[in-house]
Amino acid sequence: MRLDHIGIAVENLETAESFWSAGLGLPLEGREEVAEQGVTVSFLPVGEPRIELLEPLATNPGPVGRFLEQRGPGIHHICLRVNDLDSLLAQLDNAGIQLIDKSPRQGAHGMRIAFVHPKATGGVLLELAEPAPSE
Amino acid sequence: MRLDHIGIAVENLETAESFWSAGLGLPLEGREEVAEQGVTVSFLPVGEPRIELLEPLATNPGPVGRFLEQRGPGIHHICLRVNDLDSLLAQLDNAGIQLIDKSPRQGAHGMRIAFVHPKATGGVLLELAEPAPSE
Repeated sequence: MRLDHIGIAVENLETAESFWSAGLGLPLEGREEVAEQGVTVSFLPVGEPRIELLEPLATNPGPVGRFLEQRGPGIHHICLRVNDLDSLLAQLDNAGIQLIDKSPRQGAHGMRIAFVHPKATGGVLLELAEPAPSE
Repeated sequence: MRLDHIGIAVENLETAESFWSAGLGLPLEGREEVAEQGVTVSFLPVGEPRIELLEPLATNPGPVGRFLEQRGPGIHHICLRVNDLDSLLAQLDNAGIQLIDKSPRQGAHGMRIAFVHPKATGGVLLELAEPAPSE
């Protein structure tokens, strides 16, 4: 199990990149629109994991847009990469741990993903992601 | 520059460990009291970086205790490991970036540390840490 990324909700990607990349010196690997999540994402590797800056789409702000409205900018979630998401979800569910997704849904790049409820983790929205078989 | 750890403020280490370690399966590497920061810390490696669970000391709750009172449990800060903290702080300060520590202070294990203000990062309390020369 490895930390895959930290997702940070931002109002504006240019402003956020001006700190994390231009200011701090992290490499900016790219930008991508992820319509299903209602965000445009900037990817900045920090060693093995990445920082992902998440700006809500104007047309479909989704959960990150709602988070920004309610809480303001900041860390939205962290994501752990796992090998066998089905088994892990079954095990967590059996242990009575509150899941947002009891079965995996489709993420970007063929990943299978599921979220654990912040009530179960101690206030952290936790994404679990299983890479596509080809990776 | 590498992600060193994610610090999560928790009310109670046993409860938090029961999710992150017993439930999720992350190895629990150890526990340590860090008096200067007013916390007891549990260390859980997730690949290269670590998750650090931070429980305030009853006798000296410090900034993590205040965070818990005001915001409840959740991610308190992230920490990046850097090679030359003095140069980086000077560079950030010159760029007008708001720093909590304009010069490094002593952290645990001989690390030199400094915090960047959440206003500068987009809502993220950011620790910068330079390892002790012997590491």
